[in-house]
Amino acid sequence: MRIPFEELRRTLARCLMERGFTKDRALRCAHIFAENSLVGVASHGLNRFPRFLQWIDHGWIDPVAESVRMATQGSFERWDGNLGPGPLNAEQCMKRATEIAIDNGLGCVALRNTNHWMRAGTYAWQAADNGFLGICFTNTKPNLPPWGSLEPKLGNNPIAMAIPRANGAHVLFDGAMSQFSYGALESAARKHAVLPVPGGFNQAGELTDNPAEIIASQRPLPIGYWKGSGLSLLLDLFATVLTEGRSTQELGRQADEYGVSQVFIAFSKAFVDSRAADSIERAVSNLHSAQASDAAPVRYPGERLFRIRAENTERGVPVDARIWTEVSKLQAP
Amino acid sequence: MRIPFEELRRTLARCLMERGFTKDRALRCAHIFAENSLVGVASHGLNRFPRFLQWIDHGWIDPVAESVRMATQGSFERWDGNLGPGPLNAEQCMKRATEIAIDNGLGCVALRNTNHWMRAGTYAWQAADNGFLGICFTNTKPNLPPWGSLEPKLGNNPIAMAIPRANGAHVLFDGAMSQFSYGALESAARKHAVLPVPGGFNQAGELTDNPAEIIASQRPLPIGYWKGSGLSLLLDLFATVLTEGRSTQELGRQADEYGVSQVFIAFSKAFVDSRAADSIERAVSNLHSAQASDAAPVRYPGERLFRIRAENTERGVPVDARIWTEVSKLQAP
Repeated sequence: MRIPFEELRRTLARCLMERGFTKDRALRCAHIFAENSLVGVASHGLNRFPRFLQWIDHGWIDPVAESVRMATQGSFERWDGNLGPGPLNAEQCMKRATEIAIDNGLGCVALRNTNHWMRAGTYAWQAADNGFLGICFTNTKPNLPPWGSLEPKLGNNPIAMAIPRANGAHVLFDGAMSQFSYGALESAARKHAVLPVPGGFNQAGELTDNPAEIIASQRPLPIGYWKGSGLSLLLDLFATVLTEGRSTQELGRQADEYGVSQVFIAFSKAFVDSRAADSIERAVSNLHSAQASDAAPVRYPGERLFRIRAENTERGVPVDARIWTEVSKLQAP
Repeated sequence: MRIPFEELRRTLARCLMERGFTKDRALRCAHIFAENSLVGVASHGLNRFPRFLQWIDHGWIDPVAESVRMATQGSFERWDGNLGPGPLNAEQCMKRATEIAIDNGLGCVALRNTNHWMRAGTYAWQAADNGFLGICFTNTKPNLPPWGSLEPKLGNNPIAMAIPRANGAHVLFDGAMSQFSYGALESAARKHAVLPVPGGFNQAGELTDNPAEIIASQRPLPIGYWKGSGLSLLLDLFATVLTEGRSTQELGRQADEYGVSQVFIAFSKAFVDSRAADSIERAVSNLHSAQASDAAPVRYPGERLFRIRAENTERGVPVDARIWTEVSKLQAP
């Protein structure tokens, strides 16, 4: 089932206004959710929207709270998200990082006490779509055992990096430090599918591509084994120190994941002059020219999302009919 | 065979003076090589030193060239390494990034036209050892096929991140975007050992833990499969755009790897106040408290190196007797 992007956005916005969002903020927040479905990441778009509303009802997301600047030092600013909606806080802080970068070469905003931003790629893309180089990362509640451990002491701490292309099809990396999210594991388990590569350990401590076994053991695999485990800890420490906010460990002591710590870095659009733009295009062409190992062409990160975005813009956004019906009923008349 | 750190350092320094290094620069560069052996990474310490001298003889490393600032914008500076010794250029640029960070919250130095820095961790550690948070990354020649490809179009582009601890045992991630370096694959192949986890593809396109098969196929595995492949491209693009220097693709057109592009970022030591220091210690304790999956205790990244450093400082630096004899003969009397 497909619906037009604008219909999806307006419907979500009406639900948010019902929950106390001002019209402007409701439309901006709904845009981010709708866009996540538009680019094919419904798990952080429409499908996650009912849970977002529940978080508001729990009091973990304050619909009217805005992030506020707490400290400034040169190219660095520390903001407090005041437990406002994660997507709005993140959008504002990446915008602020790009503003700082204009005069300072680069800008960094460290945002504490905020909420799940849905998809890391949204904000790195935002920087790139305005001509900047963007990096952002977040910590999460504990959901990943450190390498060599049985206990989920680390977060999967997604990071995104983006480089602008003149044609708008920006290069975008967006990934968590776990090989697969629990969402992806659950989705595969429901279909009784095996993972394309091993994604964690079974209860016997052996690597497995069976998603149900990984869910049972609670031992998903960090990317690159010990490497993703190490990177995860460093991302959490950078986020915690720079924001003066909650660590993954502290998030684990709460009833659920709210009040996370995030970092946004932008590099000036002035760096992307014609020479740099040529260099970026040559890198993309070079990758496309690589001999493929199977029938699928070699793609740069973010390319698939951009193609899906174009297709769904034309054909409508695919939605889960059950969730769409549920959400449609929630909107104010 | 073990030798005292100071003897190793002085011997390497005499070799460098013989090649035209000033005494001060020879001692600093020799210190970095000796320290890499000291912390157990001889592949980028003594064992790589003869190749470093060859690079000088090829004219790819200029012993007397110094890096020079080309442009400044706010917290950002672009430097040209003038094909000088990579370790000296990198050390200088991370030092400069920390100086910028003192007044600006963070500092970034983009260094082009430099040479192999040996070990990424050296410079992130340098930042942390002075109380700063450090990040640095480099591009390399093409040595890693993008995910889904047979051709090595990407570099393995190591990145390091470090967080200071008051006791000096800093948290340090240092890793390439390939699961194993060619050095590690060759070392395992010589011992007829299997890798601890699959490290690449064999000629039939199947994942394998046999290092010789991976060397034969030239298809090492990116960390996290498609994820490390994507991260590698982004790191190369960030390095190339920010430095205005050579890309991995351009490095691949040369006779060998020289003139690489590197980025150094430091965050102010003022961020590491007593609250942050407590938070870092709690994260380390939390990790140490994790239930281990086997007999080995759970360790934070960089912990093993710190222990090896302490042991080798006391007992002497382990050296390959053949390489040590070879290098000892090279020094000026």
